Amino acid sequence: MNAARQVLALAGGVGGGKLARGLAAVLLPDNLTLVVNTADDFVHLGLHISPDIDSVLYALADLNDSVQGWGLAGDTDHVMDALARLGGDTWFKLRDRDLATHLLRTQKISEGYSLSQVTQLIADRLGVGHRVAPMTDAPVSSVVDTERGYLAFQDYFVRQRCAPIFYGVRFEGAALAEPSAAFVAALECADAIVICPSNPFLSIDPILALVGVRAHLESSRAPVIAVSPIVGGNAVKGPLAKMMGERKIPPTSLSIARHYSSMVQGWLIDAADRDEAAAIESLGCAVRVTRTLMTTPEDKSQLAEAALDFAADLARQNS
Amino acid sequence: MNAARQVLALAGGVGGGKLARGLAAVLLPDNLTLVVNTADDFVHLGLHISPDIDSVLYALADLNDSVQGWGLAGDTDHVMDALARLGGDTWFKLRDRDLATHLLRTQKISEGYSLSQVTQLIADRLGVGHRVAPMTDAPVSSVVDTERGYLAFQDYFVRQRCAPIFYGVRFEGAALAEPSAAFVAALECADAIVICPSNPFLSIDPILALVGVRAHLESSRAPVIAVSPIVGGNAVKGPLAKMMGERKIPPTSLSIARHYSSMVQGWLIDAADRDEAAAIESLGCAVRVTRTLMTTPEDKSQLAEAALDFAADLARQNS
Repeated sequence: MNAARQVLALAGGVGGGKLARGLAAVLLPDNLTLVVNTADDFVHLGLHISPDIDSVLYALADLNDSVQGWGLAGDTDHVMDALARLGGDTWFKLRDRDLATHLLRTQKISEGYSLSQVTQLIADRLGVGHRVAPMTDAPVSSVVDTERGYLAFQDYFVRQRCAPIFYGVRFEGAALAEPSAAFVAALECADAIVICPSNPFLSIDPILALVGVRAHLESSRAPVIAVSPIVGGNAVKGPLAKMMGERKIPPTSLSIARHYSSMVQGWLIDAADRDEAAAIESLGCAVRVTRTLMTTPEDKSQLAEAALDFAADLARQNS
Repeated sequence: MNAARQVLALAGGVGGGKLARGLAAVLLPDNLTLVVNTADDFVHLGLHISPDIDSVLYALADLNDSVQGWGLAGDTDHVMDALARLGGDTWFKLRDRDLATHLLRTQKISEGYSLSQVTQLIADRLGVGHRVAPMTDAPVSSVVDTERGYLAFQDYFVRQRCAPIFYGVRFEGAALAEPSAAFVAALECADAIVICPSNPFLSIDPILALVGVRAHLESSRAPVIAVSPIVGGNAVKGPLAKMMGERKIPPTSLSIARHYSSMVQGWLIDAADRDEAAAIESLGCAVRVTRTLMTTPEDKSQLAEAALDFAADLARQNS
């Protein structure tokens, strides 16, 4: 177990879930708070869906489907197949066992639970001991600006498979949304803050857009470590490189470092991108080169250790 | 195909579904309107559930699970099993393929469809040609008065398995609820009205409680034929006999005939209850004795034919 006392990690879905699993493997439950993007959340077929929270919870519970990258391993599609026969909307695939999570969340929210409370409940019932919290309990929704106009996030991301050219994204509700209580508490007492290798535009920026979060990170006494989601000029998974291309931004770790700017003190980049280290350092931050691809449980733990060691070293330098 | 021109049938769930299947077998789609109880409807886990409508639709589509008496034949429980593992509410069992119907209904209602419209949509997609309509598009809810206090219908019926002693039932919203447009149209032009062998207290009384329905049936020029839900001193299925006992009403066809009183011109009772025929006739209605148990498709068709023949004979006597 790592010596870090209190670690706050900011995560989106899949890339976030992988590093979250690594952090949970090397930190005791009381020493880690995972704050998860909720700007992808939406109500579909009457159900409250929190895709990134579920990805992180399933990853921590070792129940995630690592092949398709979302949902529960070994799940089935009896409900969606029947819905297809009824001519219903099946563009957003709700697999059978995964549906139980959405049903429970929807019921508890209708009973008055906050998203934080229901996330804690589901975590407990999945046997997840580490703290997982939504970034906020207020409604925040990503709206994607594209060549086809403004699209609701899941319309862009799932229904249209990120095909429309990406101009930008706004986070409706974020300017008035307070971070969740667990997020506030973790910001206050964190000894290290880790930005997971999630999509900056879609998964991390909404977290940074909440009331006070960016300012808090900019002035944080705890080092902020980020793991680049880019490896060798491409995103490990998802549409990040395509989106960067459409924004005329080179798909490099350097571009990502420029995007987060002075907020990050330490960058972990992949060995494939070692040529960019000097340019990133010239932005005023430290850089370490490591393997950032996470395939095996050991990859995840080693990357988590590398991030925590990096934070500890930077903290020593600061003090 | 039977010669009757326009037939209106009032139905609850299982017993209603069986006779509905028989009527659909002997009448052309344009000649039958099935009006179904919706006072059992409720929102559960965020989903709009219409148990009796689904029972009738599945029966007409030959997709119903005739063994357990509700739901779809050959369905599975992956969602509920996963919900049980999450510690969720599984007292109301939503099977996998059946869930697709609830998801579609919930989505369409959230988009502004009326229950009539969404029922028509689901009927179309299940290949059901005969008209199936909810009794009303307004919210009506059965509230059961029991020894344990007032209970929401599904709490009494499913969660508590009808165990609490039954004192009575009220239909919240019914006094202000207009019958659905299809129900009004069918009332206006029916040549025969059939009350299916559903539970009078729980399934048929809510239909009769809607604005104007009871008065319309009392003064109907079309004969009203009812099939007794009691056979040999017991209900074919469900808690009817238990409820009658708790209300100190003998569980007989005669009691049911007294309950509906002057609204019914013709009673179809089972051969097991032939001794009651004279007493029922003394209430001022005609009685025919037949086999009312419906096990095979032929049973259902024959009972439907018997009801329609009875109606035709009574219409001739009236004219």
